[in-house]
Amino acid sequence: MKLTYSPASPFARKVRIAAIELGLIDRIEFAPVAVVPGQPNDEYSKIHPLKKLPVLILDNGDVVVDSYVIVEYLDELAGGGKLIPASGALRWKVKSDHSLLQGMLDSMLLCRYENMVRPEPLRWQAWSDDHWNRAWLGMARFEGQVDAMMARPLDIAQIGLACVLGYADFRFADCGWRKAYPKLDAFHQKMLERPSVKISLPPAA
Amino acid sequence: MKLTYSPASPFARKVRIAAIELGLIDRIEFAPVAVVPGQPNDEYSKIHPLKKLPVLILDNGDVVVDSYVIVEYLDELAGGGKLIPASGALRWKVKSDHSLLQGMLDSMLLCRYENMVRPEPLRWQAWSDDHWNRAWLGMARFEGQVDAMMARPLDIAQIGLACVLGYADFRFADCGWRKAYPKLDAFHQKMLERPSVKISLPPAA
Repeated sequence: MKLTYSPASPFARKVRIAAIELGLIDRIEFAPVAVVPGQPNDEYSKIHPLKKLPVLILDNGDVVVDSYVIVEYLDELAGGGKLIPASGALRWKVKSDHSLLQGMLDSMLLCRYENMVRPEPLRWQAWSDDHWNRAWLGMARFEGQVDAMMARPLDIAQIGLACVLGYADFRFADCGWRKAYPKLDAFHQKMLERPSVKISLPPAA
Repeated sequence: MKLTYSPASPFARKVRIAAIELGLIDRIEFAPVAVVPGQPNDEYSKIHPLKKLPVLILDNGDVVVDSYVIVEYLDELAGGGKLIPASGALRWKVKSDHSLLQGMLDSMLLCRYENMVRPEPLRWQAWSDDHWNRAWLGMARFEGQVDAMMARPLDIAQIGLACVLGYADFRFADCGWRKAYPKLDAFHQKMLERPSVKISLPPAA
């Protein structure tokens, strides 16, 4: 299998951590791809018309799209019910938490594009404030429930939360999330004890 | 169960169609919510920090987040394997196609926000062109495979595609998708024969 990848992508990082934790990392070849909003990449558009990372290309050529669906695929490949509970209320809790975290990453990326990629005279403060506020309120939500999360075996919501916090460090180093959310800080430190989380940290910004 | 809803939201429409097709619509109460990017909605932020629609609130107060996860939840409630194939290559095909369609909707919404919500002097043509191009290339992808899709029983990818095309009509009425993609036009007309698809059409723009 081949995974389109960028070391800066929090979505690709999530899949990488999952693949390591599921014992599947040796079966995946990493294919670096550079995508920048506002710039075409005709080659990659043929694989993924939305130019998003990551995509998993199976050995038969089938393409699995979306970091979450890739994790689901890998989880099933590893026997099922590993990082996504197979049934019960916890299944929907983990899936819903993961969706929230995915949306937080989307909002953080929109902030990043607004503040760094968009030409400066065209930036709209209310837009980046709104999206940053979503991510920030999302962190507040998880600050209130991270103790319960840490008591569970590793799942995709915990991996997603580690990727959100790693992305905050990577792109919003001065945002002060550790001070505002001390329980998330403790969670992040604990997650970093896992080699999968540590090895996949984004490069220095 | 209660679903936060707006008749203009293609994501909420997808859940509504799925709920009708799964025979669960009578068990869902619709709770209208208005969210506008760049504007706070403190009340709704308490339910969903990202202020996204729809959210399914279960009778025990648990919250299921993300239109796709809600459809998965409803599908399981209806016995499982109805709108999302339970196993095999088709499972990953349908999930991947749905992810693409979800990304197309995200890009179309970003275009809409750029062209209609953002103050006019702050609009960046390269951004809206890029996102429109993603949606447009996505339609081209589905034009090439919609015959195979139509040969299958109804699934969430077909529902997602109907919602993309309905949203194109609703917000980008002059984009000319019918002329460019005649097979999608035939697909859309066929989907409109379903009461679930017809009744959930967005209001006149």
